[in-house]
Amino acid sequence: MKRTISALLLICFVLNFTVLADEGMWTFDNPPLKQWKDRYNFEPSKEWLDNVRLASPKVNGASAGFVSPNGLIATNHHVAAGYIERVSSKERDLLKTGFYAGSQADEIKIPDASASVLVSFDNVTDRVHNAAKAGKTDAEMAAKRSAEISTIEKDCTAGSGGLRCEVVSFYSGGEYWLYKNKVYRDIRLVMAPEEQAAFFGGDYDNFVYPRHDLDFTFLRAYENDKPAVTPNYFKWSEKGAADGEFILVSGYPGSTARLLTVSQLTYQRDIGNPLQKKVWELRRKALENYSKLGEEQRRQAWPGMRSFANSLKRLEGQQDGLLNPRNFARKVAEEKDLRDKLAGKPELDKQFAPAWKNIGDAYSKLPPMANRLAFSSLSSSRLASIAQQIVTYSIEVAKPNDSRYPEFRDTRLEGIKSSLASPAPIYLDMEEAALLFWMQEAVKTLGPNDPFIKAAIGDAEPAEVVKRAVRETKLVDPAARRALFDGGASAVAASTDPMVTLAKRVEPIIRELRDWNEKTILNVETANGTKIAQARFAVYGKTMPPDANSQLRIEFGKVLGYDEDTTLVPYKTTFYGLFDRAFSFGEKAPFDLAPSLKARKDRIDLSTPLNFVYSADTIGGNSGSPVINRAGEIVGLNFDSNNQKLSNRYWYIEEDEGSRAVGVHTAGILEALRKVYDAAPLVKELTGK
Amino acid sequence: MKRTISALLLICFVLNFTVLADEGMWTFDNPPLKQWKDRYNFEPSKEWLDNVRLASPKVNGASAGFVSPNGLIATNHHVAAGYIERVSSKERDLLKTGFYAGSQADEIKIPDASASVLVSFDNVTDRVHNAAKAGKTDAEMAAKRSAEISTIEKDCTAGSGGLRCEVVSFYSGGEYWLYKNKVYRDIRLVMAPEEQAAFFGGDYDNFVYPRHDLDFTFLRAYENDKPAVTPNYFKWSEKGAADGEFILVSGYPGSTARLLTVSQLTYQRDIGNPLQKKVWELRRKALENYSKLGEEQRRQAWPGMRSFANSLKRLEGQQDGLLNPRNFARKVAEEKDLRDKLAGKPELDKQFAPAWKNIGDAYSKLPPMANRLAFSSLSSSRLASIAQQIVTYSIEVAKPNDSRYPEFRDTRLEGIKSSLASPAPIYLDMEEAALLFWMQEAVKTLGPNDPFIKAAIGDAEPAEVVKRAVRETKLVDPAARRALFDGGASAVAASTDPMVTLAKRVEPIIRELRDWNEKTILNVETANGTKIAQARFAVYGKTMPPDANSQLRIEFGKVLGYDEDTTLVPYKTTFYGLFDRAFSFGEKAPFDLAPSLKARKDRIDLSTPLNFVYSADTIGGNSGSPVINRAGEIVGLNFDSNNQKLSNRYWYIEEDEGSRAVGVHTAGILEALRKVYDAAPLVKELTGK
Repeated sequence: MKRTISALLLICFVLNFTVLADEGMWTFDNPPLKQWKDRYNFEPSKEWLDNVRLASPKVNGASAGFVSPNGLIATNHHVAAGYIERVSSKERDLLKTGFYAGSQADEIKIPDASASVLVSFDNVTDRVHNAAKAGKTDAEMAAKRSAEISTIEKDCTAGSGGLRCEVVSFYSGGEYWLYKNKVYRDIRLVMAPEEQAAFFGGDYDNFVYPRHDLDFTFLRAYENDKPAVTPNYFKWSEKGAADGEFILVSGYPGSTARLLTVSQLTYQRDIGNPLQKKVWELRRKALENYSKLGEEQRRQAWPGMRSFANSLKRLEGQQDGLLNPRNFARKVAEEKDLRDKLAGKPELDKQFAPAWKNIGDAYSKLPPMANRLAFSSLSSSRLASIAQQIVTYSIEVAKPNDSRYPEFRDTRLEGIKSSLASPAPIYLDMEEAALLFWMQEAVKTLGPNDPFIKAAIGDAEPAEVVKRAVRETKLVDPAARRALFDGGASAVAASTDPMVTLAKRVEPIIRELRDWNEKTILNVETANGTKIAQARFAVYGKTMPPDANSQLRIEFGKVLGYDEDTTLVPYKTTFYGLFDRAFSFGEKAPFDLAPSLKARKDRIDLSTPLNFVYSADTIGGNSGSPVINRAGEIVGLNFDSNNQKLSNRYWYIEEDEGSRAVGVHTAGILEALRKVYDAAPLVKELTGK
Repeated sequence: MKRTISALLLICFVLNFTVLADEGMWTFDNPPLKQWKDRYNFEPSKEWLDNVRLASPKVNGASAGFVSPNGLIATNHHVAAGYIERVSSKERDLLKTGFYAGSQADEIKIPDASASVLVSFDNVTDRVHNAAKAGKTDAEMAAKRSAEISTIEKDCTAGSGGLRCEVVSFYSGGEYWLYKNKVYRDIRLVMAPEEQAAFFGGDYDNFVYPRHDLDFTFLRAYENDKPAVTPNYFKWSEKGAADGEFILVSGYPGSTARLLTVSQLTYQRDIGNPLQKKVWELRRKALENYSKLGEEQRRQAWPGMRSFANSLKRLEGQQDGLLNPRNFARKVAEEKDLRDKLAGKPELDKQFAPAWKNIGDAYSKLPPMANRLAFSSLSSSRLASIAQQIVTYSIEVAKPNDSRYPEFRDTRLEGIKSSLASPAPIYLDMEEAALLFWMQEAVKTLGPNDPFIKAAIGDAEPAEVVKRAVRETKLVDPAARRALFDGGASAVAASTDPMVTLAKRVEPIIRELRDWNEKTILNVETANGTKIAQARFAVYGKTMPPDANSQLRIEFGKVLGYDEDTTLVPYKTTFYGLFDRAFSFGEKAPFDLAPSLKARKDRIDLSTPLNFVYSADTIGGNSGSPVINRAGEIVGLNFDSNNQKLSNRYWYIEEDEGSRAVGVHTAGILEALRKVYDAAPLVKELTGK
């Protein structure tokens, strides 16, 4: 029952809620300079933009910011939660207790953690498109394109001096860019509050505002066992974000689907999203059942459960958006407008009009395959995933570099080796429980005669197969993984490790499905998506940013409250609100107070801002993004969106509909570091005081 | 975007949100004893019920509770706001500053204030129905009914020893009861917080929860210049309402429309409500324009503006409910069920089935008259209303008692005299502004040739007519009103007072419209509404309480949070929340802090409950209602509903849809009295401490 506040109400009490459109997750090659200048009188220098880019590392698949010249990184607690769990144990649960390394010597090295920075980017669209032109069919074009990309990446890597080279597709293949990243591979934990302080309100308050979460963590990048020198960093604003202030957000938004055709969206709405929901619910259920066995089991399962809960709540919000006929009609109208305009230019129309039909035809083949594609998978178990990765690698590596699956090209092998070497703990009981639950559900969904089921289970009992695979595999030991990896095809062929043999049995099935999907769906999508992107460029110009793809973007907007249910939601919350919510629920979980917050309550200036909202166009992956002011100072750490924003996967939602990103306020972080966590040295590193 | 929280979310964090149906505003002759026993194991004694009834006075059209044996009354600040304004002045604005009479000598007598208690009630349905049977047409039946009611009231008054006797209609005339009320006519102001503390968040937060309002005021009933002896009162619970607790609410819900036919509801939705909205918006606009002239003008206009804003926000919520096709379909289905069941009993069907058609036919005549009925009115001005009252009285009083309009029967004349004698201030500038604005809008809506406009304005300029009437009338003086009233028809006929002559000119027009409405609509509604009520009794039994009609009712439910937008709303708020909301908005109006709250912030135990919610079936008029526990102690003061509840005018809304009443918590009131308002003697009177 959100309603636009009536003009009537606004007559009486006018607060400063101006409304502007702040759309876009922009690439750094095409920042929205005109919008910034026109709307916010903001004209950043090249140095300003370069500094933001180089101070914005990608961490654990999400976003972060350098906040000192000594490699100090600020990100969200929930972004680093997997890292924190990785350096925790039954005896020392740092998620629960929090952690602060009073000195650099106490900072804890995190296995298999990395941070990467976008050092340079070059447009290679012409090279890729020209190579693809030599193909006659979609599949041939895809192969040519893939080969050219592989060549570009390999050539780059050779001369990059250690940078990671990656060709990235934008606009459904309308553009290709060569991105060079500097990768830091020694990341250490500096400070984390208790998870209960970072995630107060739990899944209930996730994607909700007003909000009261200290969702921050500090990490540090090291090189050669010393803090990395990071001259590009964000100065810490002690004052933090102010009401009505223009802000920008840099980071790695994961995925949007705003340029999809109506046929693609229809599939998502009617089949794709419901199926995804089912898969995630099952995987969550497996962990949940396991977590009920005891406190230690709960600790092991918690990061995964939390991640699925988060994904599910987001998916439900997105699906609610798709199910809203008014929103969907807008997409239909947008597509119609583009196609109508094309129809007015016959030469373009002839070239581009078939693209929509081609995609629609391809998607019509997807429904009967959807369950097989979703359920023929080993990814519910880490050990099984490792086995599958090694088995697939052993086949792929025998091929010429540019014919391999992209993740097994030469440029990626170093990363695979590094992740296989990770000593991060694997919990056998949980592995067995998760894999068995999945297999049992896969049997229910696909039936006993499905090729994947027959290959995986055969005539045996799922419980037996899974138990043996998990209990007898040697892959728990990173050295065993490495030996198999290094041994290649012959070692894998000879292996009798029961997890490896399971992976070998299902490999042909998974490969066949993947190849079917690439040939029937993905290649058609790319070929025709490219055409639609070109049509859009031809009709409208390059006025829209590309869909998010986990690459660095910059977003912008305004710190801004909103109206909801006839009243107003303020731009910020305070520590008062945290204690109100805890005591209003009688401190029942998940509204209990982290022990240190409760103990230090009377020391905190309760009117200090805690969380705040703004209109920037963010999405999942932007977690941990620095929220910065026009001076380039960090004024907050992005960590969530409210409900109203969830369907922005499919379309931009106007800020006057109450769509907002949610951040932790830098003043609130400082107050916590000073008064709750006694982290004076860290405060000094951030502020100089 | 309210959503029912998914089962998925509830698996993880189970709070104690049980769901039961707590429907009904029950009369004291038919309390829902079975529901209470079955659902809450509550079996009150006759003494318990008598005490609640006798401790629940009606005050200023709304509800209240005696809270000491010495006539002390607790009600809402917003219920008493008109009273407080009445004892305020430009120099001493008690709405703004608040007030506390440290001793009884300092308690301020409020002009024209009263409190009434329901002392006894007798079923007179048979007498009224039997009398009506002698009539042949709806109009004749109405006259017979009216005469009988008049006789009953007069006989009662004669032998009542000063009680006020009133025959009240229930179930659209399905039942009639003789209510005897004890009326206290000397009411004094004891304590009121600043309006900013009582109405924090202003119109924005009205009908919204979570909420942070100290919406209470204490009055005292006097008899013979001494505090009234009130042995029936509610003991004050210092602990106040607890989560999950069974509670009851006694008070005077104003009006519901749950027994209306589909044709009546359709009229409300399509014409009645939009027209009512227009009228209120215009009257509000007039006050708003006036309030912009200066601070003193704003003070004068504020109670009226606030009242219209409240009415409008409520009306919009109600109308949203009616416009919801799913809700409306439920009403259609309910009516169909009753009529289908009737159709199965031919003898009943023959008797009752025409009732729906008769009402539908009557309503079909209403639309062309609706604007005239709404706009032919002088009620935008108090002086004009007084003049109209005296003029109409002078005509009516010449008739036999039982042929008069009900409000001019002998039993009501004492009340009219008393209200005419009120020395409450009348602001001439505001009178002129409001009446002129109304007349100008009436001309726009009705056109210059409309009978009301011609009678009121003729060929003159509205501004001239209004100015002369307001500036030259003597009715500002209560003595002048009284003289005219006592002088009766001849004095009124002779009067050349320009406000009286205005009232005399429009009287025949207003009378004609009123008579048309009575004959064409109201009598048909009553006659056929009675039949539908009887049909309902015949089919279902007396299972439903009658529609609310500003008479004493008892409601019940549970103290209970709810889910909203995928998260949870707690059953209570705390003082922490008040300060969070103030500081979150930078203390901008209407989220600024009352000075005493700001000054005493550090003395308050901020975790004390402030407001709370419960599932009882309340509606406008229940403002000020005592919320009581099973021991009969007062645990809160009802003051509002949330958004989700607004359309409960038309149907009961299940508590699992988040529909809640909102109260001030007695612990919060005590904390404020002790720590903010230094009202120790009042605390002692309430608690004995």
